[in-house]
Amino acid sequence: MTNVAILGFGVVGSGVAEVLTQNKGIIEKKLGKEVNIKYILDLREFPGSPFEDLVVHDFNIILNDPEVSVVAEMMGGSHPAYDFSKACLEAGKSVVTSNKEVVANFGAELLEIAKAHGVAYLFEASVGGGIPIIRPMCNDLASNNITEINGILNGTTNYILTKMTKEGAAFADVLKDAQDKGYAERNPAADVEGIDAARKIVILAALAFGKAISPDSIHVEGITEISTTDVELAEDLGYSIKLIGHAEKIEEKILPMVSPRLIPHSNPLSGINDVFNGILLGADMVGQVMFYGPGAGKLPTASAVCADIVDAIAHCEGGIKLPEFSVADASDLADFEKYTCRRFFVFEKCAECDLTRERVEKCFGTIEGFVCKGNRVGVITAEMSENEASAIASKLNGGKAYRLF
Amino acid sequence: MTNVAILGFGVVGSGVAEVLTQNKGIIEKKLGKEVNIKYILDLREFPGSPFEDLVVHDFNIILNDPEVSVVAEMMGGSHPAYDFSKACLEAGKSVVTSNKEVVANFGAELLEIAKAHGVAYLFEASVGGGIPIIRPMCNDLASNNITEINGILNGTTNYILTKMTKEGAAFADVLKDAQDKGYAERNPAADVEGIDAARKIVILAALAFGKAISPDSIHVEGITEISTTDVELAEDLGYSIKLIGHAEKIEEKILPMVSPRLIPHSNPLSGINDVFNGILLGADMVGQVMFYGPGAGKLPTASAVCADIVDAIAHCEGGIKLPEFSVADASDLADFEKYTCRRFFVFEKCAECDLTRERVEKCFGTIEGFVCKGNRVGVITAEMSENEASAIASKLNGGKAYRLF
Repeated sequence: MTNVAILGFGVVGSGVAEVLTQNKGIIEKKLGKEVNIKYILDLREFPGSPFEDLVVHDFNIILNDPEVSVVAEMMGGSHPAYDFSKACLEAGKSVVTSNKEVVANFGAELLEIAKAHGVAYLFEASVGGGIPIIRPMCNDLASNNITEINGILNGTTNYILTKMTKEGAAFADVLKDAQDKGYAERNPAADVEGIDAARKIVILAALAFGKAISPDSIHVEGITEISTTDVELAEDLGYSIKLIGHAEKIEEKILPMVSPRLIPHSNPLSGINDVFNGILLGADMVGQVMFYGPGAGKLPTASAVCADIVDAIAHCEGGIKLPEFSVADASDLADFEKYTCRRFFVFEKCAECDLTRERVEKCFGTIEGFVCKGNRVGVITAEMSENEASAIASKLNGGKAYRLF
Repeated sequence: MTNVAILGFGVVGSGVAEVLTQNKGIIEKKLGKEVNIKYILDLREFPGSPFEDLVVHDFNIILNDPEVSVVAEMMGGSHPAYDFSKACLEAGKSVVTSNKEVVANFGAELLEIAKAHGVAYLFEASVGGGIPIIRPMCNDLASNNITEINGILNGTTNYILTKMTKEGAAFADVLKDAQDKGYAERNPAADVEGIDAARKIVILAALAFGKAISPDSIHVEGITEISTTDVELAEDLGYSIKLIGHAEKIEEKILPMVSPRLIPHSNPLSGINDVFNGILLGADMVGQVMFYGPGAGKLPTASAVCADIVDAIAHCEGGIKLPEFSVADASDLADFEKYTCRRFFVFEKCAECDLTRERVEKCFGTIEGFVCKGNRVGVITAEMSENEASAIASKLNGGKAYRLF
């Protein structure tokens, strides 16, 4: 029998308890041994819950119980989640987590501690909720060099952008609707400003390229500046605007970033709507593969956590191959200014000006797309650098520059 | 050092040699040990190939060499591929394969032999080419009951249907074009009649539900009867026609089948075009997840084979958890007549008849969609059984019945 402790009995923590209980049969059949929830750590009491007798308030009870061999950290936030995880690993307990903040900031250190103590530190649920992505990336693409990652990594912003696209609603109105429905937090900054997606893309980049870059050091744009007109102009040109976590290597250095991007309708990422997530990986041997599913939610996230619990238990006598990455230094991060891609400019034309495609081409050089709606103009250009794009946008009347996929 | 032998040096076999050679560094870093191709079994010689010195013509050289611990069977066909695989497993060598014919027909037996000898029998590449699907299904969804599988499992037919949809071209013309481009075999029966997809859906159903059903005993329809008008009518109603391998449980019995289906444009499967494959899994905890990528091709398929090779080597001291399923008997297979779903009827209206939606509803009861183009009519009905659907179709003028997703 393996004893598991759950740290934090919020949405995901209670989901993990539910999955382990409801699908006990299938899990134990796979493992060939019994799995028992011994403790649930939370500051609150849960009278009436079927798990109320398991609740403890003192972390040391779990830490000091040698019978607990797997700990599921579902607390959220950096502290004390990081500290508790570290203590458990050092005590020879495997830790599984959905906590992207801890993995993005302390993952390299915790993996090293896990390795040193012969236990597992697993975090499938930290990216893409219930979507299998970390294990497939490390195992199924083991013989590939990952070349590029593009992911819709945040369900809240994808829900908002989908509504803006399908219903022509304004950002602020959709955000309010999402908050009312519980899809967005009362303080939505971490989602709409791209911070959540930044944590996730640095985790994926660390797994793909071996270096953990701080989410605070990468270029991050959210979706607050996107107007319904921008969305309409892009759609007219055959593109959807999505908030994309992107990472690639430029001259052997790593460039992760988060920003809205135009995705052509022919690309499978463009069809990922509502709260769903999708991650498209480019790799040298397999080409492109995409993983799609629910990026959040109680049971989907718990499903991923439980896969890690099963993995940790199955390999508790050793044999699990942990991902490996180390903390990046400044020299590992590519210069953002070296990044080039095609651009989508949106700007306002003066009332008296007759803006034809020919006149636009005189300004931008060869263009790949041109659309005009009322007094707003959308232009798709050839590849250019960040500096060039900013310089052009600043000269245009109310000009904005988007990146293309 | 681990020595690997490759059986069959055709498209996939030579791809495996290429991946193991070209990405030797990344593979050996992951494994922490050297991987060496010791033999390649083929009837032919390959003068000028960098691997020509490794070619042997006698299987016994490989079987009797105790230094070979992993064998990649890339021969295709049932015999001698099955016989060689069995002999290798019995000799204590792990076997990995892309051979869906062997896995669909002999998988349960070979898995049992592998287990008895403490070695691996892995077949990630047998379904979905390079797409990670088998390992994620077994590992990442370990805490889920799989409830339903729907997959675009054959690239050739998906290419043909995409062309018919986008260009309005007729089946026969697109097939010829696909043959000229090398996407379809000169004898295309296995693809266009759904046999290839049938082998793949029974493999997925075996992994999901634990019972291996013979591909010869399931309902299989191909795409040869689909007309461009059928495709157009479906598109007008908001659906794409795709060849779908489907499996679900009905009253605790398993029902796998292959047939064209109407997929609503809002479903991510409908956007999977050309030679790509996609598998949408329904599971009780995670909800729906989809895996997308290249369903065939030299390097993508080799990528999946090499993931299995890495897995087999990493766990060669034991510890690998093999999928488990046993051979189904007749009582495991659900009665096809018990299957119900919504239907799409296509038929011809008589020249003098003014066919309105109201008149159609009088015949079909409540309908969910109605479209008329020239003298062809498309009607989407409520759920009905196979018998009911056939009875209605046979009474209609040139009537056909499609299943809906």
